[in-house]
Amino acid sequence: MKLIGVETSTGAHHVAIDDGERCRILDTVDGFWSAPSAALTDAGGAETAAGSLTRVPPVPASARVFCIGLNYRAHAAEGSYRDHKLPDHPTIFARWTASLSVGGVPAPVPSGEPGLDWEGEIAAYVGATLVDADADTARAAVLGYSTFNDLTSRTAQKLTSQWTLGKNGDASGPLGPLVTSDEAGDLRSGKRVRTRVNGQTVQDGNTRDMIYELGSVLSLISHTITLHPGDVICTGTPEGVGYSRTPPWLLHPGDVVEVEVDGLGTLTTPIVGNDKRTSGGTA
Amino acid sequence: MKLIGVETSTGAHHVAIDDGERCRILDTVDGFWSAPSAALTDAGGAETAAGSLTRVPPVPASARVFCIGLNYRAHAAEGSYRDHKLPDHPTIFARWTASLSVGGVPAPVPSGEPGLDWEGEIAAYVGATLVDADADTARAAVLGYSTFNDLTSRTAQKLTSQWTLGKNGDASGPLGPLVTSDEAGDLRSGKRVRTRVNGQTVQDGNTRDMIYELGSVLSLISHTITLHPGDVICTGTPEGVGYSRTPPWLLHPGDVVEVEVDGLGTLTTPIVGNDKRTSGGTA
Repeated sequence: MKLIGVETSTGAHHVAIDDGERCRILDTVDGFWSAPSAALTDAGGAETAAGSLTRVPPVPASARVFCIGLNYRAHAAEGSYRDHKLPDHPTIFARWTASLSVGGVPAPVPSGEPGLDWEGEIAAYVGATLVDADADTARAAVLGYSTFNDLTSRTAQKLTSQWTLGKNGDASGPLGPLVTSDEAGDLRSGKRVRTRVNGQTVQDGNTRDMIYELGSVLSLISHTITLHPGDVICTGTPEGVGYSRTPPWLLHPGDVVEVEVDGLGTLTTPIVGNDKRTSGGTA
Repeated sequence: MKLIGVETSTGAHHVAIDDGERCRILDTVDGFWSAPSAALTDAGGAETAAGSLTRVPPVPASARVFCIGLNYRAHAAEGSYRDHKLPDHPTIFARWTASLSVGGVPAPVPSGEPGLDWEGEIAAYVGATLVDADADTARAAVLGYSTFNDLTSRTAQKLTSQWTLGKNGDASGPLGPLVTSDEAGDLRSGKRVRTRVNGQTVQDGNTRDMIYELGSVLSLISHTITLHPGDVICTGTPEGVGYSRTPPWLLHPGDVVEVEVDGLGTLTTPIVGNDKRTSGGTA
């Protein structure tokens, strides 16, 4: 089953089932995530032509977006962390939901950045409350997955020890549709993650090469922070990002970046200039 | 003027003016922050006895909570950063609004932590949209300030290079009432920030000793991320945190921690055990 977020005529954000041509609205985003299993088994809901609604991330504003840095061995060995030993624990940084967007929405290059970097990856959606959960329980609570691009302002990211600023640019976190776990399977079986810039493949990894397995990462988090339905965890990017290349290769206005994942589809993001910010276009 | 967040009988969160015994509800939290100046000058709104309503943070779920680390010289010289040179830029890390709470709400010590550490500070509330703003414009856009305690799970914070996990424990970010800028003045005039544990003073700093001035930090952020009304920035803690003491001193269940700031009042937080999490008490 494929879930999307849609904005209805009242401006409210809803979760809907997308079957291609039609979509069926299930509940408001907050209502859906208060009891996702019940919402999914409810046969009701209005049907609408999929094309007539504005898409939004199917995520409550209150959700935490946990991002795992350095989760593929070959990526941990490129760029500015190549001389560090592999950390003993997953490196978790934060995105706010305000940085999320969906496919087709332009991402601006902020002023002061020479460009944006791509990080194609897979996002997972927590479907239950998790407190001090073990890895199996946490993994079983994943409602589904989507494509994700962790578009990064490298200059801001590297300004200090903390990456927050460079990881939360306007519209810098596009998410594809959520494919439920029963259909998508889990990540241990191996999913190919590819990123293309203007049609040229720049990343081609596989979740088999992940260092930290998703269930164990969610378990770790749940021992400090109570996870709620709707929380998102972005599982890290494989090797091939732009800034560590010789010469560096970053995204500029006019470029188009795509993330394609087995079974999750293709997520397309056009890059635009900072003038889209100053004109209020991405606020 | 003093603003608080209240939960009404429908479960919706509202912003209200608190004049001590009575409070006057202005708008829903999201409505208030969509046009804060208009909401403040609107004379209408229902009056209620202040004691009859549950208090909540007066912050939209979509807000970003930017936190400045190492913003007082003497704090930067204590603890695990004492051998590092002072960073050239403010170190900004993220809290999610899901970690926020208000005075009187118990904060649990997560499993695996030997205790919680205190970090008394001042939170500032952004009152306008800011894109590529200069420091004067950004400072003038601050709607007000409140007391804040950046309660920290040090073990989780220090697990990897990124502090996110240890800075987002359940109910670990209590905020006091918002005092508007016209009444509170700005931070450059010098505000004393004190923290007490079970009545004993453990921090006694002054905003005059800040390294990074609030307007310049907001300006820096706005060059990467468009700031929205309702975004919060926590301005850092002075010296005297617990983990860097010999021996270390952390908060345990039964302790009470208070943060007092000139003109902003006193914020009190009781500490409880992890059983409050496992029983769903803080979720």
